[in-house]
Amino acid sequence: MARKSSLSGFPEWLPAERVVEQHVLDTLRRTFELHGFAGIETRAVETLGQLLRKGEVDKEVYAVSRLAEDQEVAEGRRPATSPDDPKRLALHFDLTVPFARYVVENAGHLAFPFRRYQMQKVWRGERPQEGRAREFTQADIDIVGDGQLSPRYDVDVALVMAEALGALPIGDFLIRINNRKLAEGFYRGIGLTDTAGVLRSIDKLEKVGPEEVARLLQEEVGASAEQAEQALALAAIRTEDTSFVEQVRALGVQDDLMEEGLTELAEVIGTMHRRAPGRAVADLSIARGLDYYTGTVYETVLVGHEQLGSICSGGRYDALASKGNRTFPGVGLSIGVTRLVMRMLSQDMAVASRAVPTVVYVALTADEDWSAAQDVAGVLRERGIAAEVAVTAEKFGKQIKYADRRGIPYVWFLGAGESGHEVKDIRSGDQAPADPQTWMPPAEDLVPQVTAG
Amino acid sequence: MARKSSLSGFPEWLPAERVVEQHVLDTLRRTFELHGFAGIETRAVETLGQLLRKGEVDKEVYAVSRLAEDQEVAEGRRPATSPDDPKRLALHFDLTVPFARYVVENAGHLAFPFRRYQMQKVWRGERPQEGRAREFTQADIDIVGDGQLSPRYDVDVALVMAEALGALPIGDFLIRINNRKLAEGFYRGIGLTDTAGVLRSIDKLEKVGPEEVARLLQEEVGASAEQAEQALALAAIRTEDTSFVEQVRALGVQDDLMEEGLTELAEVIGTMHRRAPGRAVADLSIARGLDYYTGTVYETVLVGHEQLGSICSGGRYDALASKGNRTFPGVGLSIGVTRLVMRMLSQDMAVASRAVPTVVYVALTADEDWSAAQDVAGVLRERGIAAEVAVTAEKFGKQIKYADRRGIPYVWFLGAGESGHEVKDIRSGDQAPADPQTWMPPAEDLVPQVTAG
Repeated sequence: MARKSSLSGFPEWLPAERVVEQHVLDTLRRTFELHGFAGIETRAVETLGQLLRKGEVDKEVYAVSRLAEDQEVAEGRRPATSPDDPKRLALHFDLTVPFARYVVENAGHLAFPFRRYQMQKVWRGERPQEGRAREFTQADIDIVGDGQLSPRYDVDVALVMAEALGALPIGDFLIRINNRKLAEGFYRGIGLTDTAGVLRSIDKLEKVGPEEVARLLQEEVGASAEQAEQALALAAIRTEDTSFVEQVRALGVQDDLMEEGLTELAEVIGTMHRRAPGRAVADLSIARGLDYYTGTVYETVLVGHEQLGSICSGGRYDALASKGNRTFPGVGLSIGVTRLVMRMLSQDMAVASRAVPTVVYVALTADEDWSAAQDVAGVLRERGIAAEVAVTAEKFGKQIKYADRRGIPYVWFLGAGESGHEVKDIRSGDQAPADPQTWMPPAEDLVPQVTAG
Repeated sequence: MARKSSLSGFPEWLPAERVVEQHVLDTLRRTFELHGFAGIETRAVETLGQLLRKGEVDKEVYAVSRLAEDQEVAEGRRPATSPDDPKRLALHFDLTVPFARYVVENAGHLAFPFRRYQMQKVWRGERPQEGRAREFTQADIDIVGDGQLSPRYDVDVALVMAEALGALPIGDFLIRINNRKLAEGFYRGIGLTDTAGVLRSIDKLEKVGPEEVARLLQEEVGASAEQAEQALALAAIRTEDTSFVEQVRALGVQDDLMEEGLTELAEVIGTMHRRAPGRAVADLSIARGLDYYTGTVYETVLVGHEQLGSICSGGRYDALASKGNRTFPGVGLSIGVTRLVMRMLSQDMAVASRAVPTVVYVALTADEDWSAAQDVAGVLRERGIAAEVAVTAEKFGKQIKYADRRGIPYVWFLGAGESGHEVKDIRSGDQAPADPQTWMPPAEDLVPQVTAG
């Protein structure tokens, strides 16, 4: 991570760094599949009409155009299209909008509730900064129903993510959970009807502090000093168990929607507290800004790295997608894989044991042994041991040095010693007779290991 | 494959189709890693200057621009940039150009010869047609040296690809191999100096036939009738072993570069013939059009699907990349994964046993059993068995029907029968007592299987 990417906001990893990222992706995939999520991918481009449908104008979008067409326009041989023509193509900025379109288009071929995971690159033209790239990988899980979706799935996705994140070498994390119904009902209950405006102000709490938010609420949403105080009192509630319910009730606000939200959040937090203790907290300050969630909302902080922002966020939509009078409610969470991996690498939180998959480097005694050496490597590979073969019979010292430089732990010598073959652990220097049909390295050498740094 | 993608040229797979694609990617990755290739990824965008550096103007490029900037230009608040401004960003159209840049940028951090695989999406704005998409996945392997690279690597990469493709359910394939030095030397030897022009014409042989190519050679390259005949005689040579050498010599042409090419190709074909019999052939008609190869060139056809075009192509570059007076020769091959998977799916060459990873669906007898059911599912998952849990205690018949509709093979019943638990194979209807700590499905049910259709 001493290197700077040659294009700001477009990080690229060295092989050993990629081993760490691949380990994260493999671990997530394994957890998601064990929980019955099917993997899909959607195309990288959507039409602008599709991308901006949910009013996500705040997301910086990258438009895409055929260079040949651009040249025709520049030469006056083709009429220019408007930059925001809804038919124009653009790169997706998240995986939720494309997934919603996929569900609508393929509804007749999917079995609902449909559980899917999706791990792909997304693009945003924002100013690059710590924790924010212009190209980054997200790993999403969503469960989407046809017409209805049990609130139990709100707990299900949180438990899956707690397990997935818990399997990564990232230390402690905390999923902070709130409920939009609770918050919006409460605001209405105290007489604030511009609930979106209140949420937008509350969303700034961590950045600007309660006093500034109180000012914003009064100036921008027209709240009285008491209303601002009450909204902030709600946002200050944070409990590991369901005791937040009593704390909310103590604020003395009556609202049906708020009650619905309290019941839903109590169910989620109660179950998380029992099944994944220490992983989740009811945090009534979580707003999730402009995103169009309608119930449970989630954010996740890495303990000790709170200023990094959320590494895994999401929520429930009453209508993730709709098709005619058919609606598809959904609930899901999205991990910012690149943000997480950048932090893991920059803070040496995780390290790869080597940069290459190779376990064994088969040395050559003579150039004409290459085919025999390939035979040995072939036997090792059939047994799942990654092996490569030298191409020229240089001095053994030089061949060992090459393996060492690439991080390959073992060098194999053909026809050396009494048994015909010998293998050398070049880290310890130990050399012993070996049979390609039976020799096996210790488990920790078989594939590159990623461990907490 | 009855469905049409909603954006022409941008295919998307249903979950069961994605299982097939994922199987292809997993199989390739495993083979590449067993042969010591390290996985890397490069960013999706390059500058136009970088992309068009090798003169690849024939590739249709997608340019990328921030929508906010486009709007500023349209409103006259920002000066327009030229469509072919070299600093403009565009999506990569292959993985070779980005890899060459990556090697140059990171040369100080890589150990050479550097073996890497790279499996990513690429984009080309070409007219979509059978076998050609605008967004598609490529899987590349390359070996790149610092200053020099043994010709043995030309065989190495071909053997790896023969093994990788041989592990896929795609039937027979044939790697057709030629050598640029052989061809160019031969053309020079018969007095044709515009060797690029000759290659361009020969490249059309399969599409337009020998008579048309003879006409092209005379009209466009200025060849005489005899020269055209000789060039076609060379292109007609095709042998499984090294007997092509004698056939070329019989044409009576003398040229040093040709001799070098003959030696290199004989080495490649001789070794392929011994180590991967039936997988490769010397085919002196292979030209690889405008690509800037300097030695061995490869194309691969799927036997019985020749009209699909090449599914795996590549070659050797004397200078894949350069940095000051340092050059990085490389040799590699690229699989057109999307092209291959499209064919596998459209011709039912391969089929997934199910669309979901889930092995066991844990049914509910009562709503309050959900936590106990999650415990059972948790034990199964810890043992590597993918499991999901019902959310409501509907009638068993309805729960079984749900599992059946999603393709889940087993339904688990809590507290049923004397032993406490029972599991039902819903395909056979067999139901038996089971212990979550010990029960294991047959290996073929553990993960979705992809088999020849």
